[in-house]
Amino acid sequence: MGCNLAIAGVTGAVGQEFLKILEARDFPFDSLKMLASSRSAGKKIKFKGKEYIVEELTKKSFGRVDVALFSAGAARSREFAPAAVEGGTVVVDNSSAFRTDPDVPLVIPEINPQKIAENKGIIANPNCSTIIGIVPVWPLHKANPVKRMVVSTYQAASGAGTSAMLELEEQTREILDGKEPTCKAFPYQIAFNVFSHNSALGPNGYNQEEMKMVNETRKIFDCADIAITCTCIRIPVFRAHCESINLEFSEAITPDQVRDLLGTAPGVSVLDDRENNRFPMPIDASGKDDILVGRIRQDESVPENRGINIWVAGDQLRKGAALNAVQIAEKLL
Amino acid sequence: MGCNLAIAGVTGAVGQEFLKILEARDFPFDSLKMLASSRSAGKKIKFKGKEYIVEELTKKSFGRVDVALFSAGAARSREFAPAAVEGGTVVVDNSSAFRTDPDVPLVIPEINPQKIAENKGIIANPNCSTIIGIVPVWPLHKANPVKRMVVSTYQAASGAGTSAMLELEEQTREILDGKEPTCKAFPYQIAFNVFSHNSALGPNGYNQEEMKMVNETRKIFDCADIAITCTCIRIPVFRAHCESINLEFSEAITPDQVRDLLGTAPGVSVLDDRENNRFPMPIDASGKDDILVGRIRQDESVPENRGINIWVAGDQLRKGAALNAVQIAEKLL
Repeated sequence: MGCNLAIAGVTGAVGQEFLKILEARDFPFDSLKMLASSRSAGKKIKFKGKEYIVEELTKKSFGRVDVALFSAGAARSREFAPAAVEGGTVVVDNSSAFRTDPDVPLVIPEINPQKIAENKGIIANPNCSTIIGIVPVWPLHKANPVKRMVVSTYQAASGAGTSAMLELEEQTREILDGKEPTCKAFPYQIAFNVFSHNSALGPNGYNQEEMKMVNETRKIFDCADIAITCTCIRIPVFRAHCESINLEFSEAITPDQVRDLLGTAPGVSVLDDRENNRFPMPIDASGKDDILVGRIRQDESVPENRGINIWVAGDQLRKGAALNAVQIAEKLL
Repeated sequence: MGCNLAIAGVTGAVGQEFLKILEARDFPFDSLKMLASSRSAGKKIKFKGKEYIVEELTKKSFGRVDVALFSAGAARSREFAPAAVEGGTVVVDNSSAFRTDPDVPLVIPEINPQKIAENKGIIANPNCSTIIGIVPVWPLHKANPVKRMVVSTYQAASGAGTSAMLELEEQTREILDGKEPTCKAFPYQIAFNVFSHNSALGPNGYNQEEMKMVNETRKIFDCADIAITCTCIRIPVFRAHCESINLEFSEAITPDQVRDLLGTAPGVSVLDDRENNRFPMPIDASGKDDILVGRIRQDESVPENRGINIWVAGDQLRKGAALNAVQIAEKLL
């Protein structure tokens, strides 16, 4: 049972990851359209032994397309997704354009797959930091509702696209050669440096990335009153995000209970080897599907043993973006 | 009013920083002994236009020495500091050897300078992450006692010494050249990667670095019941630590109050430019004396406006180690 598939933004970092994941998972399709901006139109991309020519993404790109995976930025999603939907295409959108729209399901298949059926043509893929952070929190929350989360992120360059990953490499070379680093993709030096996430700040002083984690988690958990505060930071790593997550539960909970719950949770691997001081690292998570979880500890600063600290790492391009969208598309079929 | 000064561990990263700071602050001394392990004995070091020969650190190194700055590791402090004290030397020790000893003052001059006078020959310099984290928390705590702190660190290679800083550079070159990175100073790859702090884990799953922050903060604040939980992480940065600090206060507090309190606090600079998304970075803090503080936000996940998030950056070798010790020595004179 195949489908007519399109990828909008196929030449970007997430677009390229879509192709790898579709191939690895042997995603069933009858036809595949590769779409990107006019700048990339005409490029040739090999996929499963066949050569495809990238076409310009327009409102007319979606005739006969059943499912379109969008990762071309929020502005392009806003411009082109409605036209696709009008023609009968279901859009799985990786941008932030529709995530908070009450008519659009925001889906992580391990958490709320039932929402997929409620779609009116668009299903939104959550922000990468949200996915990586809450896939492992969900099985804990189901067993013992989380009252409050304090999150600090360690975010890879890939979240800002291919140009940002190249900039990390180029700046690193420049600095090792004793030159001034060139900043284009990022506002500040990323090589051998970290900075507060480069998304716009709201009036409360939180940046968009932080507020996405707060608002998306509430929507995905269907829990408006979960208390969440985030600090989002860019670090000089290529493609896996880490997060330090402090959790306050409703009832007492032990690290062993957390390990047991996560040991059987879909999409999660526990890597919590205290004896060898061996815990999740970005290089472990890169190219992997699962979110890795370690540093599972009782937080003794929360009374009644209701506090737990965890440390997670996940591939920003895979589960943080392309994989989650492909999983949604698989459930659609 | 000079003194006879000695530096134990002068060839290390902190030892070299001692020299820079003593020169920059025109620290008054009549004589200076440069001490290190036998491996470094005989090396020549120029300081203030004069050439010094590094002598081997032994129990007999301290005759006539008034003040000794130690940064040669905890084992050497345990072995040699008592002999120095016996001969009348006051030791300012940068290692963890004596920090939790109830007879040894643990001092940050901006916080508890009065403890210096209580010394019985040894004054301990706190751990770098502790100093960088709590210098800006103290003025807030004095105004409105902190009930709970949740800290996640972003720690530079320098905390593990010169060899670790070189390893970050070497591994980075290896990876850019397509080679496997060589791990010697650190157990895991540090270039383009992060890992949980490489200090030993206790039975509660916290590493020593995390427990230092908990126990040292309580001792320095003279506040046994402040609730603190930490997650300490190494990142690929050379010499400045950052920390994401979530604070729960006893009473309501606003970001403006925090900015006002920190604006006049010694050893602290506020860099909190929301309009330009410009906040403290390791490259800002490197080589600077002050701890930089930004991302000052109300934490809306704490009831009654009692929550605040801050983001700090401080030079691990300066205020995190050498500068704090020299400031203690200045107050001793």
